[in-house]
Amino acid sequence: MLRTNNCGELRMAHIGAQATLCGWVQTIRDKGGIIWIDLRDRYGVTQLILEEGKTDEKSIQIARQLGREFVVKATGNIAERSAKNDKMPTGDIEIRVSSLQILNTSEVPPFKIEDETDGGDEIRMKYRYLDLRRNIVRKNLELRHKMARFTRNYLDNLDFIEVETPVLIKSTPEGARDFVVPSRMNEGQFYALPQSPQTFKQLLMVAGFDKYYQIVKCFRDEDLRADRQPEFTQIDCEMSFIEQEDILNTFEGLTKHLFKQIKNLDLADFPRMTYAEAMRTYGNDKPDTRFEMKFVELKSNEIVLRTSEKHISNLVGDTFPVFNDAEMVVGICAKNAANYTRKQLDELTEFVKKPQIGAKGLVYVRYNEDGTLKSSVDKFFSEDVLKNWAEKMNAQKGDLMLILSGEANKVRKQLSELRLEMGSQLGLRDKNTFSTLWVIDFPLLDWDEESKRFHAMHHPFTSPKPEDLELLQTNPALVRANAYDLVINGVEVGGGSIRIFDKDLQAKMFALLGFSKEDAESQFGFLMNAFKYGAPPHGGIAFGFDRLCSLFGGADSIRDFIAFPKNNAGRDVMIDSPSVISDEQLKELSILVKKN
Amino acid sequence: MLRTNNCGELRMAHIGAQATLCGWVQTIRDKGGIIWIDLRDRYGVTQLILEEGKTDEKSIQIARQLGREFVVKATGNIAERSAKNDKMPTGDIEIRVSSLQILNTSEVPPFKIEDETDGGDEIRMKYRYLDLRRNIVRKNLELRHKMARFTRNYLDNLDFIEVETPVLIKSTPEGARDFVVPSRMNEGQFYALPQSPQTFKQLLMVAGFDKYYQIVKCFRDEDLRADRQPEFTQIDCEMSFIEQEDILNTFEGLTKHLFKQIKNLDLADFPRMTYAEAMRTYGNDKPDTRFEMKFVELKSNEIVLRTSEKHISNLVGDTFPVFNDAEMVVGICAKNAANYTRKQLDELTEFVKKPQIGAKGLVYVRYNEDGTLKSSVDKFFSEDVLKNWAEKMNAQKGDLMLILSGEANKVRKQLSELRLEMGSQLGLRDKNTFSTLWVIDFPLLDWDEESKRFHAMHHPFTSPKPEDLELLQTNPALVRANAYDLVINGVEVGGGSIRIFDKDLQAKMFALLGFSKEDAESQFGFLMNAFKYGAPPHGGIAFGFDRLCSLFGGADSIRDFIAFPKNNAGRDVMIDSPSVISDEQLKELSILVKKN
Repeated sequence: MLRTNNCGELRMAHIGAQATLCGWVQTIRDKGGIIWIDLRDRYGVTQLILEEGKTDEKSIQIARQLGREFVVKATGNIAERSAKNDKMPTGDIEIRVSSLQILNTSEVPPFKIEDETDGGDEIRMKYRYLDLRRNIVRKNLELRHKMARFTRNYLDNLDFIEVETPVLIKSTPEGARDFVVPSRMNEGQFYALPQSPQTFKQLLMVAGFDKYYQIVKCFRDEDLRADRQPEFTQIDCEMSFIEQEDILNTFEGLTKHLFKQIKNLDLADFPRMTYAEAMRTYGNDKPDTRFEMKFVELKSNEIVLRTSEKHISNLVGDTFPVFNDAEMVVGICAKNAANYTRKQLDELTEFVKKPQIGAKGLVYVRYNEDGTLKSSVDKFFSEDVLKNWAEKMNAQKGDLMLILSGEANKVRKQLSELRLEMGSQLGLRDKNTFSTLWVIDFPLLDWDEESKRFHAMHHPFTSPKPEDLELLQTNPALVRANAYDLVINGVEVGGGSIRIFDKDLQAKMFALLGFSKEDAESQFGFLMNAFKYGAPPHGGIAFGFDRLCSLFGGADSIRDFIAFPKNNAGRDVMIDSPSVISDEQLKELSILVKKN
Repeated sequence: MLRTNNCGELRMAHIGAQATLCGWVQTIRDKGGIIWIDLRDRYGVTQLILEEGKTDEKSIQIARQLGREFVVKATGNIAERSAKNDKMPTGDIEIRVSSLQILNTSEVPPFKIEDETDGGDEIRMKYRYLDLRRNIVRKNLELRHKMARFTRNYLDNLDFIEVETPVLIKSTPEGARDFVVPSRMNEGQFYALPQSPQTFKQLLMVAGFDKYYQIVKCFRDEDLRADRQPEFTQIDCEMSFIEQEDILNTFEGLTKHLFKQIKNLDLADFPRMTYAEAMRTYGNDKPDTRFEMKFVELKSNEIVLRTSEKHISNLVGDTFPVFNDAEMVVGICAKNAANYTRKQLDELTEFVKKPQIGAKGLVYVRYNEDGTLKSSVDKFFSEDVLKNWAEKMNAQKGDLMLILSGEANKVRKQLSELRLEMGSQLGLRDKNTFSTLWVIDFPLLDWDEESKRFHAMHHPFTSPKPEDLELLQTNPALVRANAYDLVINGVEVGGGSIRIFDKDLQAKMFALLGFSKEDAESQFGFLMNAFKYGAPPHGGIAFGFDRLCSLFGGADSIRDFIAFPKNNAGRDVMIDSPSVISDEQLKELSILVKKN
């Protein structure tokens, strides 16, 4: 070893001993014959001191040549500092340098290697190896390592086996786009990179492996959004001889274990909510339950007045056609937000009218502290009617009611966005608060207007609830699946299902999804074949590992938790990839590039 | 859970309790009103018993419908067996079935799910999910899981961080062929799958990560041999601020840890041998040191007689031109093999003359028990000369000397093959004996006759030994590298090097390897750029994880330790991949298939 100690470990107890440290020059101060150097490595920062007259001249000369990020090796005695720094773990000591050696020089880095850096996103990605020197970035990856360790420990202790499944597999048109790999040895044929090890883990259950997991890279060739990467990592799990309840308990256990080990938090048992209820209450199958602000639907009679109070005149002026024509009128009550200014309310209206959200307008009702009600629809509704709404929505003096109307599915999505925005504005989405939720009973199928056929909501191997089996023939849209998502703070961190393990039901499922018998056979024949030889009841779950890490790290983007991420065009700007390959390579692979 | 216990855990202590087991029907015996079922799962086998008159009629009916590999759920009381089976861990007990349920049926499997199966290699690969049900195959993957666990534990305890490096990287022509992945979003451009995370782990060192590891899939598009797979797994490691000695010690420690934890073996410190010595002594840079049988070179004067005995007539008849013309005459002494028959010796001659080995012939000398010497070159050499050889080769009465001659490099390779064959024939290569060796001081460069240029023996990032630096200009072929391989039982299980961390030396190295400045820049510019900003001294190692597992498992092929391996044509015959993809997919990727 070139060093005896690292830059994070020396303390008062070491005083008097000699140490050799290696690391990067964080800062140099040269004042009146004394030079201080902050030397940094992965473990911390230690102060070096050189003093004219005391330190040998050669070391002082070397110290005066140093620049930021030079790599040096320093030997000296560990001494007590005269001016201690209680913000640094090594702040009580310093090294009185007796020998200093430059191991490597450094050009001036293009941005500061500090927590608060002056480098923009693009330059930090190009020089990712420098960005990774920053404490906060390195800590993200240390967190990721710990998350993986604790995950493995938990699952290993439960007798799960980690099995590596292949990366070069077979392309299937179902689901998202595959990345493909031309095969040189099998001319004109391609491997695909797995979007998940789904079929392989099911085959492992057929093989009797009973409890499987894998922390595994998966691939999806999709147009990227901020929190998507073409390659991402899953904690992929599967169990046999279990029911849905067992999966939920086992992986609720894993999640609690991680929170305990990493954050020393004891989470309460996770509440459960059906998909239908989540959509009704939050307009969202991954609701952020750190705050309530539940949806309240106003029935057509309530829009005017309560039936028992028919004698009260409901309308001030004309009827309000926007509500009258709407399939659904639904609102939220933002506690203590009646003081929202007109400007703030206008901004909220603009927010819901953004094309990505698409509402036509926003109705607000302020329940003022003095008991009066003030709304954007005063000319249509009397105060009595507004009071009626307030009661329905459980609004108190000081609250703000926000109401949207329109087609049920659309208006729920719009109100869900508004609810999240209000949660953020009112400070209800604290990154250090964790609210968990199992969303269960997802629909099995999803009608796609464009292709005029059903798609699998989860994937084609998800089993319908036994009690809904008959509906498969009569009303497939109503069939619920034994499928579940784990949602934390509005983020879907995991999802899975109990699988079909009966070959006839699986064949029926493929037919329902529009597969011809031939297509089903050529794409999934191996799985259906496997089901002929004693497939056990089984099910599983997969966690998005990058997202789980970002949740634990209190960040929004998964990119910060990936050592070498790609940008939104799928490029690694550091290595400048993808890139063209040689004609010789193309020829060997029997392919040509043909630009569209 | 559908079960209360698994099929491997019930013992005498459980007698009297009730249990529910799930598993696969291994065997059924139906004799005179008593039915025994051996029920198997991953954990073991438990005997079920049903008895006419005692067991309810329905369960008996169900039992009589069962076939091999049916999946059943059985409930009953745990009872002591009248005829115990001490070969089974559960052999003292049986389950007196009170309720039996078929969870799934099975067709008759295409081969027996037993340790000794009747299925050939091809059918077992096609039905790999059934092959994996066999104890011996499953145990291989359980071993693999344990190897990974203990590896991670060891490295985690030493403060190594596991960092995931990207799978979609950049193609580089150096080394073996890359698998490539067309990029849809970057028309005409390709990612490559990594042959190793080499450059990324070096960047992590530049980033200050200090101690990195990863158990990671790597990819190589080569024509496959029996023990090669297009995708394989490495234990990939790198450290900063270290010297070669530190790497050797750290990973010798890892290897000892694995032997201790997995096999309860305390290995002695690993001997070290230079590449030059390994080639001289074993004709092989990965010698099997479970047995000696070292090479002995016969100098030209020894081929005739020792200089001190010039007075003895050396030749019986003519000179032996084969030896006279040879650059090298070299032999091995096979202890206690003088009793080899003429037929056995002829077979050895055939063996070395096989085209893959390519020797022209084999000279043998039997040192008979009666002290006489009998050789295949009696008519050329007197017994005194043969005695002379025997002394040189340390042969005793009863030993067999085997001698090859020819061009030094070739004859060493040939004799190495013969040595291994003799080791096998004489039972000197016991799978339960483990002989370790560090081979060090590899040459930096390798002259390639075909391309008339130097190739990197390890890879272009390997550092020359400082004391050989001057030779880089004058005689590059003689430059030794700080490169090392870990060899166990003649298998190269790991290899690595201390890396270049100086940008000028790295540039010089690329030039020596025939890279133009532009090529070096476009392929490795990111690394050379990184070296400008304070790269620390660093080095590392990578273990072939599949091979390490097969070594521990006592098997020759790595395939047995991979859940879903590919065949020698790179095909997964179970999922039938690679396969053709749709024209639409090709179009989206801007590529065409053009058959050669």
